[in-house]
Amino acid sequence: MVSNTQLVSTLEADGQLTVHLRDEALPDPTGHEVLVRIDAAPINPSDLALLFGPADLANAQYSPGKIVATMPEPAVRAMAGRLGEVCPVGNEGAGTVIAAGDAPEAQALLGKLVAVIPGAMYAQYRLVDARACLVLPDGATAEQGAGAFVNPLTALSFVEMLRREGHKALVHTAAASNLGQMLLRICQADGVPLVNIVRSPAQVALLKGAGAEYVVDSSAASYHDDLIAAIEATGATLGFDAIGGGKQAGQILAAMEQVASKGAAFSRYGSNTFKKVCVYGALDMGPTVFNRSFGFSWAIAGFLLTPFLAEIGAEAAERLRQRVRDELTTTFASHYKARVTLEQALTRDVALAYNVRATGEKYLITPHG
Amino acid sequence: MVSNTQLVSTLEADGQLTVHLRDEALPDPTGHEVLVRIDAAPINPSDLALLFGPADLANAQYSPGKIVATMPEPAVRAMAGRLGEVCPVGNEGAGTVIAAGDAPEAQALLGKLVAVIPGAMYAQYRLVDARACLVLPDGATAEQGAGAFVNPLTALSFVEMLRREGHKALVHTAAASNLGQMLLRICQADGVPLVNIVRSPAQVALLKGAGAEYVVDSSAASYHDDLIAAIEATGATLGFDAIGGGKQAGQILAAMEQVASKGAAFSRYGSNTFKKVCVYGALDMGPTVFNRSFGFSWAIAGFLLTPFLAEIGAEAAERLRQRVRDELTTTFASHYKARVTLEQALTRDVALAYNVRATGEKYLITPHG
Repeated sequence: MVSNTQLVSTLEADGQLTVHLRDEALPDPTGHEVLVRIDAAPINPSDLALLFGPADLANAQYSPGKIVATMPEPAVRAMAGRLGEVCPVGNEGAGTVIAAGDAPEAQALLGKLVAVIPGAMYAQYRLVDARACLVLPDGATAEQGAGAFVNPLTALSFVEMLRREGHKALVHTAAASNLGQMLLRICQADGVPLVNIVRSPAQVALLKGAGAEYVVDSSAASYHDDLIAAIEATGATLGFDAIGGGKQAGQILAAMEQVASKGAAFSRYGSNTFKKVCVYGALDMGPTVFNRSFGFSWAIAGFLLTPFLAEIGAEAAERLRQRVRDELTTTFASHYKARVTLEQALTRDVALAYNVRATGEKYLITPHG
Repeated sequence: MVSNTQLVSTLEADGQLTVHLRDEALPDPTGHEVLVRIDAAPINPSDLALLFGPADLANAQYSPGKIVATMPEPAVRAMAGRLGEVCPVGNEGAGTVIAAGDAPEAQALLGKLVAVIPGAMYAQYRLVDARACLVLPDGATAEQGAGAFVNPLTALSFVEMLRREGHKALVHTAAASNLGQMLLRICQADGVPLVNIVRSPAQVALLKGAGAEYVVDSSAASYHDDLIAAIEATGATLGFDAIGGGKQAGQILAAMEQVASKGAAFSRYGSNTFKKVCVYGALDMGPTVFNRSFGFSWAIAGFLLTPFLAEIGAEAAERLRQRVRDELTTTFASHYKARVTLEQALTRDVALAYNVRATGEKYLITPHG
């Protein structure tokens, strides 16, 4: 039995959001279970969605280990399923196995540094199934392994889908993100042409500095022409969009269609080239809007990592995981702006800072300081 | 050699749309070709898109065999590919084979009544490949066979996709249409639950009278609740949308998600139930708008008949065609409000009437009177 502090988020029907630390007693691990002392857990956008959503943090009440904020009414309605539920936060992280159940798979991990993705990782300790642990390579640190699942496997999945569906090149939005930089390195290594869409000249410079060939700035007056030129140069027909709201997904399909129909005889049904944009994030939580100016051979689809890995099967998923392990400190290196404890994460200045979701400014929770 | 009159549509860069009759000399059929005397050709929404698009017919100039109208500027830009091109109109139709090339397949059709889908069917005659002809069953009329391709095969394709992708039930918008009524009869025969979305109480009565079990009126105050109830009763996770613009596709996905997540533990990623809406028409040419309030397991995709038939392969496509032939005067019966000649189709009152695209008011062109 170990005493554990964990960070939880609770939304009530009246819109009151309480994010606080609570203590619980964790039983000893049995069978295949191992007890992991969590050394580092990243704050990903998907974590922020559960932690705060669009709640008003600027005008929240802060006390030690507790934030009480107001959630806008439309968001409360959209989150009807979680009302009154105490939700532990933190998708993934890395730490040390300090106790294990009887099963050989569990015993084998004793003392090992592992990465896991069970949820509820903003805590001091976590009981997890040994078979879901990814043992970090020798010499790797918990900080290096903390984000070994979500971003690396998501970026690898993009290229995996490209291959399975027979596309030649990718388009990626919010491409200067931590995930975007990983995707760039994967595409460079694998020879997959990648059109990076970013939102400022500074982000263009960042990706160009990392060797990106095609970087398009959506804040530039020439954005639309630049996008078409890059899609024409690469032959991209598959896009991944982290933004979700607004017109960008549709603009990407329209640009792909313009390239596909160049030189072909006019058809009022558009080209036969299949074009697809997968929405995997919601940096803009507003509605998605598109003019169907790209024929009938298109799809806009949601993308989520876990069902995708299930769809490709255990063997393919393990191949992706193995690559993460092999290239943890190179292709999949993450950089963190700051490390914060569980208590610090609930203070005003820190919460406002990491909730900005600024590209390239990723935070790491270190529950043991 | 035969002298032929055909109906063509030409759009110039300045927005002037000319729809007129022109004469041409057709060579004699050779090889696999047959010469079809066109007896009947339906005016489908997809024909109207090429014929007039959003041009201003009310203020057009009408003279015998000719309409000159103005196309709105945004539409001119969207149709850049057809500027200056003389486009023959008329996707499908039926008629009698009056001459044939030497090939046995062609010779075998002499004197037969056939349905074809080569385009350019608003004409007196058409040269087509014998192997693309569908011979109408004994006793069938040209009027009965005129629409044997587009609507019947599209409706059959919806049920085909449902089976291939493992869905249990369908949702269909603009369900009181000619195509919608065919789909209803197919679903009744095949035992596939179908949620019919219509836009007026009169259309509810029409479909209920035809034996439809689930009919939802989008003009009713209770629309959203009614839709959820019908989706819950049927388990529908696949929708087909003829409307395209506006919020309906997203509302269908949201209703499917509400049903899928009922009783399940809250997940901020939504349910794992895959939900899909295919957009196959553009009754509303405005932008498509949706709030992504249905998790990440979804897709909105374009649907077009020809690529779908190619995708399922020749054998499956022939199975669908055979069913159309077998059930031409029952399941796939079409009703026409009026028959018009090529000359009548270009007069003001007639053109304004069939361009309304009103549900259940379908027109038939009969080039030989």
